[in-house]
This record gives sequence, structure tokens and C-alpha cells, in this order.
Amino acid sequence: MITSPDNQKLKQIRKLQTKRERARTGLFVVEGEDLVDAATIPAEFILRAGEDVDPKLLDEASTLGSGTRVIGVFRQQWAEPSGDLSVYLHAVADPGNVGTIIRSAHALADGPVILGPDCADPYGPKAVRASMGSIFARPPARASFEALTAATVALDHRAEEELAELRAEPPVVLCVGAERTGLPRELHPSHRVRIPLREDGPESLNAAVSAAIGLYRMAGHA
Amino acid sequence: MITSPDNQKLKQIRKLQTKRERARTGLFVVEGEDLVDAATIPAEFILRAGEDVDPKLLDEASTLGSGTRVIGVFRQQWAEPSGDLSVYLHAVADPGNVGTIIRSAHALADGPVILGPDCADPYGPKAVRASMGSIFARPPARASFEALTAATVALDHRAEEELAELRAEPPVVLCVGAERTGLPRELHPSHRVRIPLREDGPESLNAAVSAAIGLYRMAGHA
Repeated sequence: MITSPDNQKLKQIRKLQTKRERARTGLFVVEGEDLVDAATIPAEFILRAGEDVDPKLLDEASTLGSGTRVIGVFRQQWAEPSGDLSVYLHAVADPGNVGTIIRSAHALADGPVILGPDCADPYGPKAVRASMGSIFARPPARASFEALTAATVALDHRAEEELAELRAEPPVVLCVGAERTGLPRELHPSHRVRIPLREDGPESLNAAVSAAIGLYRMAGHA
Repeated sequence: MITSPDNQKLKQIRKLQTKRERARTGLFVVEGEDLVDAATIPAEFILRAGEDVDPKLLDEASTLGSGTRVIGVFRQQWAEPSGDLSVYLHAVADPGNVGTIIRSAHALADGPVILGPDCADPYGPKAVRASMGSIFARPPARASFEALTAATVALDHRAEEELAELRAEPPVVLCVGAERTGLPRELHPSHRVRIPLREDGPESLNAAVSAAIGLYRMAGHA
């Protein structure tokens, strides 16, 4: 039973809250029973409150706060771009959105979420939590927009063509940029399409919401 | 210039972080310049860092942490159920999801988000932030499921009918429940439909994602 906050495993868990340490080690932290149970790969180690570690010390190492029952440390997995339908993210900086999109892509597409520049780390605690375990089942990929070989479809609220009118043969990559600015103008996707929004409505949708609508349509359900 | 943390306005801002105080007073707090600028109703009061209040004291009263430039206190607005397309939420407990759904409904529907039992407070700080100003433009409503007079369409991943096959004449209310359990079985919507998910995918989608796909489809865009 670990009873010192200076224990090496607790120290490592705390350090892995930084993106830098996650990048350096290739490891990440999974907090909570549901998420640890969703793991499809072996853990580097798991600490359970009251079994392996003083519950108070586990709470202190957790980003969830008090009542954390289990924390696991796992090795990050990275995939290559693939599939008939996948998602490319460009400057999607909110970790909750990145995790939610990983979950939606796991539900609606056969390919991974591909991270371009300036995205939140999919292995940060908020993204892992929002992925609800899909981070294990469908590891993300990393690539530049220029490296994508499939047809690219960007969601862009200034586009003329509507998403519903889109005709694109697989393989296709749905491209989602930052909420207000979208995919940078200097990038040239095969198609730019818009989700029609009410004139008296907001300028844009949440990035995870846009991505899900795009995936639903492009998965052929509408 | 306010220089004491015991100032009445700062005290009120801190108190309004609790649901109880928001319910008691009918007021809520809006943090940050973008959101305060999105207001379409007059504020009860606004405090600007360096103008009205010591910046450090404003930071301490804010849930955003350091660097908060402005906080406003506003009166909550509540609408009645209306419109050809609206959304009913049942036990959607995550405030970020409630706020995101208010934004999506503002973008895709003509009616409000109607809150049933056990939902997060739409006037809590996380929900207000996720609404991105739509909380002002499209105030939420409150009603029980039984009080809805329009046709009700529940998203339910165990339903036989697919969302794409749905034929329902307006007015309709899209009904969204908790992510895993959906709308309780004892409630009887006019239709139950599912968003088809991959067999090798997760059991469910995020509630805000499901709601947005439902709204996109039911707004007639697919």
C-alpha cells in the first residue's frame, strides 16, 4: 500500500498531466473505473484506492478530484490515416471536443481521427474522458492536411454547397477547423460544404457538433 | 473602483455560482467579453477589470480563473414551449451538453430547448459558456414530458426505426434523455428512432451530438 506522495508511480501520474511529459514518455493517464475498464490494451500500471494506495493520495494525483477509485497509466497508441470515412482536425483546440469527435468517429466512421496542427492533445485527461473509451478502440492518427491522399470535404459556413447536396466517392476525409474560422483559406479541400444554419441563429456550431452532423451525413444515413 | 472582496456586487457574483442562489434570485452570471457582448437584454450590473474593480478581485469572483476582463449579472429569461421544431431534455445532467444543445437549437430549430427533470441548470456558468450567447437569443423553457402538446420524437439506440426513415408532421419535439439510458421507458413518445451506430463502435453518442444530428435531420436538411 502506497502511503507517501513521493511514490514514483504517483509522481509519474501527476507529471503526465502535462502535454510535455505525455509527449516525452508516450504514456497517458486514465482516471475512473468505467474508463479503465474500457481499456483494450494492458496497463503499464493501475492504482486502486484502498488496495494499492491511500485513497487520499490517489485523489490528490487525480484531475477528477475527490472520490477517484482507480487510475491507470497506459501507452499511447497512434494509427495511420485509413478507412473509407475518417476525420481530419485542424486547430480544434478544445480537448473535450477532440475527445467527443473521437467517440463520434468510432460510432459513425471506419477510419481514425487525424490530428493536424494546433489541436488539443487527444491523450490529455479531458479528451480521454470525453472519448468515453473510444480512444482505446480507435486510436487517433497524426498528419498534415497536405499528406491526406483521400478526397477532402471541409465544413465551412461560408460555402455555397450544402452538406446534403454533397456527392463524394469514398475514401473521404471530413475536415473540421476551428469553430469560427474553419479550415484555413490557404488549404484547398476537394469540397467545401456548409451545414445550413438559421439566419436568426448563431454564426457557427460547436466543432464536435459540426463533425457529428458531417459524419452522420457522410456515413450514408441521410 | 471596488477594492474590497466584501463588496456587495462581488459577493453576489460569488453566491450566484450556486444553483440555489440562481433559483432564489432569478439572476445569473456571464463571464468574459464575448459573452457579455452577446447579451440582448440589459444587465443588472457589469464589472470591468481595472475600471470598476481591482482585476485581482474580479479574477477571484470568476469561475474562469485569472485574466477575466468583465463579468455581468443578468436576469434569467424563460420561454414557453413553442415552434415547429423544439428540443425536450430529460436528465441531461452535463451543463456543457445543455449549453451546447441551446446553441444547436438556436442554429437549427425555431423553438426553445425545454428542460424536463434532472437536467443541468442552463444558467450555470458552464452551460452559459457552452451556449455561446444563444442563452440570450433563445431562452430555454421548462415543462414536463406529459405537458408537451406537439408530436414527440425520442432518440433511442434500441429503437427499430432509423432517424432517416422518420416521417413526422410539425410541430415536433425532439426528445433527448441521458446518454446511456435515453428517455425513461415509462414515457411514451409518438416515435422512437435511432441514429445507426457501427457494430464495432461505442454504445451511444454524446447527448449534445445526438441532439444535433436529430435537429439537422428534423430541420429538413437531410
